[in-house]
Amino acid sequence: MSERYFEDFAVGEVFKPSGRVRVEKDEIIAFARKFDPQSFHLDEEAARHSIFGRLVASGWHTAAMTMSLIARSEYRPMGGTIGLGFDSMRWPIPVFPGDELRIESEVLETRPSQSRPDRGLLKMRTRTFNQNGEVVQEIIANGLVPRRPAGAPPSSS
Amino acid sequence: MSERYFEDFAVGEVFKPSGRVRVEKDEIIAFARKFDPQSFHLDEEAARHSIFGRLVASGWHTAAMTMSLIARSEYRPMGGTIGLGFDSMRWPIPVFPGDELRIESEVLETRPSQSRPDRGLLKMRTRTFNQNGEVVQEIIANGLVPRRPAGAPPSSS
Repeated sequence: MSERYFEDFAVGEVFKPSGRVRVEKDEIIAFARKFDPQSFHLDEEAARHSIFGRLVASGWHTAAMTMSLIARSEYRPMGGTIGLGFDSMRWPIPVFPGDELRIESEVLETRPSQSRPDRGLLKMRTRTFNQNGEVVQEIIANGLVPRRPAGAPPSSS
Repeated sequence: MSERYFEDFAVGEVFKPSGRVRVEKDEIIAFARKFDPQSFHLDEEAARHSIFGRLVASGWHTAAMTMSLIARSEYRPMGGTIGLGFDSMRWPIPVFPGDELRIESEVLETRPSQSRPDRGLLKMRTRTFNQNGEVVQEIIANGLVPRRPAGAPPSSS
């Protein structure tokens, strides 16, 4: 599947994921050591006495794993996924060792950029689910995608 | 500095950072390989032909480095930093190899939780600056912090 221009995305389009990622305890701990060294991300025994009751992944680790799934999904904007930021981001329930994550992304809005006539803005909702179908993360993201230049052939999608 | 209860945080309080983090090229690439394998995060030559013109850090890497600075800052809620999510998150400009990041966090709002009487909600703005004082990331986050139990001594802050 080739990369697509702004004009190739339609509101309501849903991108199915290309894969799943299994959340390994060792990777939860390694990520936390580097970026989020709190006891409920680092140590099973300490986590039992925390609000979570057991070891949980850093929300930033969940966000990073979600990005790894987006990078492998059908969502392929021309030039890459350029994030401007998020309208909202939620972590409704924790991610635990052994969870298997998958994503589903939907185009909520498409809008030509005011400041950059060669770009368009895509508002996307990406939900991350665990193996029980529960939403562990939801982001509403604003991405910048190149518009089709005059004379460019249609994308083969 | 000890951990603090919900009641110990006041709107307008600003937390100075406890440190800086230097953004290393090798770490940009290592993070990208694992979580955000796009050419402008992976390869200097390819990045020259991208919208960025040079190698840049994944926004998720910037977010994770910001968390590592928050974890080392004066912001020490009782029981840890529990994120519910974000009202907004922006990456106004890219982060490059060699940048030095620091943060500044401010309490925007404090509100007792409706659903959990033993918790309060803190709305915090955390801005991440580069060595030139430019904002590379801004997040408005909602955190959950325990309320002081009856009879608990005041926190020594």
